[in-house]
Amino acid sequence: MEFDIFHEIAMPSFVARSESDAYADIQAEIELADQLEFRCAWLAEHHFRRQYSHCSKPELVLAALSQRTQRIRLGMGIFPAPYHHPVHVAESIATLDILSNGRIEVGLGRGFSLDEYRAFGVDMSDSRSLSAEMLEILRTSFTCKPVSFHGVHHRLDHVDILPHPLQTPHPPLWSAALSPDSFAWVAQQGLGMLAGPFKPWLMTKYDIKNYLGAWGGATPPRIGMAVSILCLPDGKRARQLAKQSLTWYYRELYKTTLPLLEKLYPSYEHLRELGHFREFMKLGINLTLLENFGMVVVGTPAECTEQLRKFEAAGVTHILCSVGAGAVKTEVAQESLRCIAAEVMPAFRQE
Amino acid sequence: MEFDIFHEIAMPSFVARSESDAYADIQAEIELADQLEFRCAWLAEHHFRRQYSHCSKPELVLAALSQRTQRIRLGMGIFPAPYHHPVHVAESIATLDILSNGRIEVGLGRGFSLDEYRAFGVDMSDSRSLSAEMLEILRTSFTCKPVSFHGVHHRLDHVDILPHPLQTPHPPLWSAALSPDSFAWVAQQGLGMLAGPFKPWLMTKYDIKNYLGAWGGATPPRIGMAVSILCLPDGKRARQLAKQSLTWYYRELYKTTLPLLEKLYPSYEHLRELGHFREFMKLGINLTLLENFGMVVVGTPAECTEQLRKFEAAGVTHILCSVGAGAVKTEVAQESLRCIAAEVMPAFRQE
Repeated sequence: MEFDIFHEIAMPSFVARSESDAYADIQAEIELADQLEFRCAWLAEHHFRRQYSHCSKPELVLAALSQRTQRIRLGMGIFPAPYHHPVHVAESIATLDILSNGRIEVGLGRGFSLDEYRAFGVDMSDSRSLSAEMLEILRTSFTCKPVSFHGVHHRLDHVDILPHPLQTPHPPLWSAALSPDSFAWVAQQGLGMLAGPFKPWLMTKYDIKNYLGAWGGATPPRIGMAVSILCLPDGKRARQLAKQSLTWYYRELYKTTLPLLEKLYPSYEHLRELGHFREFMKLGINLTLLENFGMVVVGTPAECTEQLRKFEAAGVTHILCSVGAGAVKTEVAQESLRCIAAEVMPAFRQE
Repeated sequence: MEFDIFHEIAMPSFVARSESDAYADIQAEIELADQLEFRCAWLAEHHFRRQYSHCSKPELVLAALSQRTQRIRLGMGIFPAPYHHPVHVAESIATLDILSNGRIEVGLGRGFSLDEYRAFGVDMSDSRSLSAEMLEILRTSFTCKPVSFHGVHHRLDHVDILPHPLQTPHPPLWSAALSPDSFAWVAQQGLGMLAGPFKPWLMTKYDIKNYLGAWGGATPPRIGMAVSILCLPDGKRARQLAKQSLTWYYRELYKTTLPLLEKLYPSYEHLRELGHFREFMKLGINLTLLENFGMVVVGTPAECTEQLRKFEAAGVTHILCSVGAGAVKTEVAQESLRCIAAEVMPAFRQE
């Protein structure tokens, strides 16, 4: 299993810092991750979510990081297809790939926030077809020949998209998904799967099964999973620090995603897990609950290693560490990164 | 008069280099310009113009440069309003301003390429109203409060645009213009004026008059003008090198802009200058012609200084040097940058 890191540039009020300081902290953490040999640094794109995420243009931060890092790969996690014109995305991917000397990884997805759809003037019911059209246009652009495409949303006639990406045949493509039936589509398209931190582990396991069942690619399947992690030599301290940061994170996250999850799984009999989970969540999110549902990894290196083995056994190939859910002081995040690199990663390299 | 530099990332076949090398060259030139105390480095946005410009995502290059430069300001020259959602532009400006520690300058404009309008699915007749809506949304976003806006093209209800720019009240705003009647609008909006390299000097002088006539701002008016320049100690060598690069540049530029200029100035009696210019252009673009029409600055430091004085006298406050029109080897471009900094800039600082 490979170790990546994942950031959304959170600014909870209890980690007092300016936006400038938050950006500087995250850049310093990714520089450290580069030195510690994490594989890839992913940044999320969110809009209009004060405190939860001040990262609306991750591609710009990755462009800056391309000059401050040497070997770590840089992941767009993700470009929400419905809010971006495919030509702009194709051009951004190529430019980033040039600036980073071929270190870009590209996540695509549909987005899940009604506020975002509304502001960008897009109908959520178009999200699947918009994503499919974007993927096809991107793929054609990677051939480096002029692109012609006649779809429902986009019409391109012999459009010469420039510049071209450096990696051949193209930067690795991934897709985030939330709906249970999306995972088969992601596999059929030959994309790496990105599982968000949204669901109890049992449900994610089910999504992984769907993905693997539909996988027919010649290369091995890629299954990335973002997880909030706080690993420190002193497990009690880790748990104490995680209490504030991780529960804050999940409370913020579920403001938008719990109603959406309920819509995606209308029948509790069909998937009882969500029913239980939902009942518990409504009583109040706390760290024990999150740990019991296998949604966070907290503790000593030995405890974290044990938890992570479970993910690996189920097929996860890339763990995207959201250290302290991005809601701890950078000194703590950097301490945890060092601890993971020194005490956890080697165990997974030995295999 | 301030000295800026301007790049479009040209890749003429006679300057053999890969896209990666072109990007590396331009970044090295801007690092040098930073050391040589040029004020600002502007990058243009163009799409689908192989050879002429491989710079479709200048904001990413500026983000990278924010980490490689210390004091030079970084200019988006320009965001074409019709191809971008105003929320994306507001977010990009703020993110760039944070990454560069408050060094961003922002140019807006309407774009002039039919191919671009077509690919992005926008009607050229909407370009004015799209630009006006973008400007209003940007200005509201700079207040750092949630934005509500009900326009013809965009509808935003209490949208919390994040992050926020660092500069107060906001990064300097400029606008490119081409149509003679746009320049008064630019002044009325209190924006700096960016004159492209499109027109004979007499016509640009006329645009400057229009702009100054309509200027009512409390601050001094800002008049930027992009010009192709090749300044070397050996004037004969400068002229020889410029022959290839500058004529190539204008031939490429006029493929799209000459028909447009003709449309904008339908009556030759109204502005005879364009009529003459057009007649000459159709006979074939050459360096003497470009020099006679005051469109390029070529020669020794003394010769270039004399030419530039003319622009300054007419009100130009910022000269955007497009060294060798971006179509010379980087060694030549860097030599010319050094020559301008050492032998031309001091003359304009003494005043």
